[in-house]
Amino acid sequence: MSKGVTPKSQDFAKWYTDVVTKAELADYGPVKGTMVIRPYGFSIWEAIKEQFDRRFKETGHVNAYFPLFIPKSFLSREAEHVKGFAKECAVVTHHRLMANPDGNGLVVDPDSKLEEEVIVRPTSETVIWAMYKKWIQSYRDLPLLINQWVNVVRWEMRTRLFLRTTEFLWQEGHTAHATPGEAEEEARKILEIYREVVEEVMAVPVIMGKKTNAEKFAGAVHTYCIEAMMGDKRALQSGTSHNLGQNFAKAFDVTFQTEDNKLEYVYATSWGVSTRLVGALVMVHGDNKGLRLPPNVAPHQVVVIPIGKSSEDIGKVLDYLDSSISALREKEVRIHIDDRTTVSTGFKFHDWELKGVPLRIEVGSRDIQSNSVVLARRDTGEKYQISKDKLQGEVERVLKDIQNSLFRQAKSFREANTYTAETYDEFKEIIKNKGGFVKCGWDGDPETEAAIKGETKATIRCIPFDEEPGGLTCIYSGKPAKHEVIFAKAY
Amino acid sequence: MSKGVTPKSQDFAKWYTDVVTKAELADYGPVKGTMVIRPYGFSIWEAIKEQFDRRFKETGHVNAYFPLFIPKSFLSREAEHVKGFAKECAVVTHHRLMANPDGNGLVVDPDSKLEEEVIVRPTSETVIWAMYKKWIQSYRDLPLLINQWVNVVRWEMRTRLFLRTTEFLWQEGHTAHATPGEAEEEARKILEIYREVVEEVMAVPVIMGKKTNAEKFAGAVHTYCIEAMMGDKRALQSGTSHNLGQNFAKAFDVTFQTEDNKLEYVYATSWGVSTRLVGALVMVHGDNKGLRLPPNVAPHQVVVIPIGKSSEDIGKVLDYLDSSISALREKEVRIHIDDRTTVSTGFKFHDWELKGVPLRIEVGSRDIQSNSVVLARRDTGEKYQISKDKLQGEVERVLKDIQNSLFRQAKSFREANTYTAETYDEFKEIIKNKGGFVKCGWDGDPETEAAIKGETKATIRCIPFDEEPGGLTCIYSGKPAKHEVIFAKAY
Repeated sequence: MSKGVTPKSQDFAKWYTDVVTKAELADYGPVKGTMVIRPYGFSIWEAIKEQFDRRFKETGHVNAYFPLFIPKSFLSREAEHVKGFAKECAVVTHHRLMANPDGNGLVVDPDSKLEEEVIVRPTSETVIWAMYKKWIQSYRDLPLLINQWVNVVRWEMRTRLFLRTTEFLWQEGHTAHATPGEAEEEARKILEIYREVVEEVMAVPVIMGKKTNAEKFAGAVHTYCIEAMMGDKRALQSGTSHNLGQNFAKAFDVTFQTEDNKLEYVYATSWGVSTRLVGALVMVHGDNKGLRLPPNVAPHQVVVIPIGKSSEDIGKVLDYLDSSISALREKEVRIHIDDRTTVSTGFKFHDWELKGVPLRIEVGSRDIQSNSVVLARRDTGEKYQISKDKLQGEVERVLKDIQNSLFRQAKSFREANTYTAETYDEFKEIIKNKGGFVKCGWDGDPETEAAIKGETKATIRCIPFDEEPGGLTCIYSGKPAKHEVIFAKAY
Repeated sequence: MSKGVTPKSQDFAKWYTDVVTKAELADYGPVKGTMVIRPYGFSIWEAIKEQFDRRFKETGHVNAYFPLFIPKSFLSREAEHVKGFAKECAVVTHHRLMANPDGNGLVVDPDSKLEEEVIVRPTSETVIWAMYKKWIQSYRDLPLLINQWVNVVRWEMRTRLFLRTTEFLWQEGHTAHATPGEAEEEARKILEIYREVVEEVMAVPVIMGKKTNAEKFAGAVHTYCIEAMMGDKRALQSGTSHNLGQNFAKAFDVTFQTEDNKLEYVYATSWGVSTRLVGALVMVHGDNKGLRLPPNVAPHQVVVIPIGKSSEDIGKVLDYLDSSISALREKEVRIHIDDRTTVSTGFKFHDWELKGVPLRIEVGSRDIQSNSVVLARRDTGEKYQISKDKLQGEVERVLKDIQNSLFRQAKSFREANTYTAETYDEFKEIIKNKGGFVKCGWDGDPETEAAIKGETKATIRCIPFDEEPGGLTCIYSGKPAKHEVIFAKAY
């Protein structure tokens, strides 16, 4: 099988799918729109997950597990919510198969029809709030800070690995609070955790902001988000955190007794990030050779490739490096030794470049004679020899440097492709021909937003927290701007 | 809400459900047969999961994720497999809801009917072997050692929290090998990991053995298992590991090129443990006060309860213990401080006994004056005062002691309730009136096994690895025994 990857500049979508499948991150499953996350891709997701999970726990959240199946009727309890999800639900109607009477395979047993159909969760607000009604009676039961790591299903017609699949993995946090202030603080706190992991661990720069009413979550009062620019200059919504106000508490009748003995509806948040973040990693950092992984999230931070084909040659190199490797592992550097004898050295170089390992250590017999090693950086392609004695310090230094350098590159790219526009013609020209983010004034009118979307396919990605609307006019209507916003085409 | 638990001796099933719900391990979900795993129960599952996951990784296994949805036709590929699972499948037939034309709620949109129905995975052999067909070409691709932690669905009519629910969480390992010997070795290696975690971490003694053909997994050549005795003397199958031979490779046409260029079918294993292990923990160690958790798996190994109600009293105790708690945390002892001012000290004692925290530290003003602390063991109820200076050493010692003591108690209980029987009348009498395990000879005939099951409801739990059939006769037929086996009623 050829490991060649379509050049990124030639066809970004094809390049993306090539990288994802050839680096063995994921594959299509047998049911249309489903995805298999392969071990290499899953270990990246595990690393990302662990970073979030640790921070959630440090801020007082606990994990739980709510059922996959939701009664159909629950979905219609919250008026906005049902509009958002009813059209893309997997519906379970029967609970048994039987031999086909014609002798050919299996058919659904008509006698196993369910009284009420059940929905495979597209998100879990409804089932969780049905349980919160049982668990919350008093202010002593609050706040309730629960998260779950689960699979969810949204029946999608057009799918793309990691970015949009019928089933995906995510975490969904669902919290209950006694006051609106606490719920707001929670939604913002989580957004900051999202920013921290995505920027500092995944090296993907994001813009933090608030969604417009048209773009917010079905059932939320406010939706906050982090938005990132992909390698094709389109935006990817990378995480959202919702202040749900009392909407779900009212829909599921969840009240609590306050300290002064009054009954009040609970205030809520929900928030999530998903396996689409793995897609973001690929699209932000990847190049024509494949993936480039930030060390903080790379399953292997360093790959050691002994030059030579025989077990004997390889054994000599590994003996030579033995104590260096142990020392690095003690410092918790994640090192993989590629001691395969069934493939060539060239194949190994190519394979680990495709898979984006940040740093390669090559050692051959001449390096052993000169007591040295060769390092090759995946981010810059730079290759240099150093004394073996300096290996440990150099590896630690260069891994930090790669982490920072990937973030800087991504940020420069975003800045170079973020525009301001003075006129709507200029705006359309940028969206159509250049791509990227346009930062401009908006009059706050949903009709303006809809008109721009209809004409250009660009949507308001967010109202950035650091907006400066003063003195701006709306790019479309020319009226005084209510907000400074970011427009872009998005995934 | 009353926290009282039905006495164990009075009604074991009710006692079990009381403990599970009142200790807040789990609750019933809104769809019949589904379960919500609450934060406290989930943190126990997380601790168990982490222990298995680490051992799987140390033995070369990697995690991945395969889709929830399986094409209906896949289920019928392997002849035995379909019999095992078709009768309890959740079937997705549609992918959209719409407003009810009568204006009342939601109905299934008939236009969204799927061309081929999809099954919610009851286990993943079929979807995984469909992928392995794509991934395996050569001996270089073997062994393939993949595990996944996922939810599975088996539509159950009679459910019990953790033990039998429509949806449950588990890990399923699926491996592919070049030789039958390697597959057999893998199946045995995993069973040993299962034994190690269940005995050494969960303090639940198990018997390792092989299932009879009647009891083995649908599609396996051999099924190995660990079987444990619960507090009501019934058996619980606590983990299984299957040598699948070439059955699935043939069903999904998965061949590989051997080193000497021949084509051969791949050899396979699969293996799993599930959230039912949390049920085993409850049923093996619990008492009339509730849970008793082994320290190795307890979310909180120690709970600190300051005696006093005011914030000031509590604050004084926490100041007094501050450096001791830090020192214990540095030793990775998991300590929870119950500083609630909204409930009484008595309530706290009761609450943490119900939740099974192995060790309680109580401190009041008199303890501060005498520079001491009071320790209370959950396993024995023993309560004693020691000098604060000795706290760290004593906590470490006593936690180890509790871990060992719980295992010893469970093992003694099993031994006291394991019988040999000379005659079938004696056998029936034990199964009917005493309960427990009966170790006896079996002639190896499936008809004997079926007859005994029909007459007594006892099944062969396993043929223990350490069986000694020599000289035994079959308990039913009187013929020479082919195997020494364990009979019991089981969950």
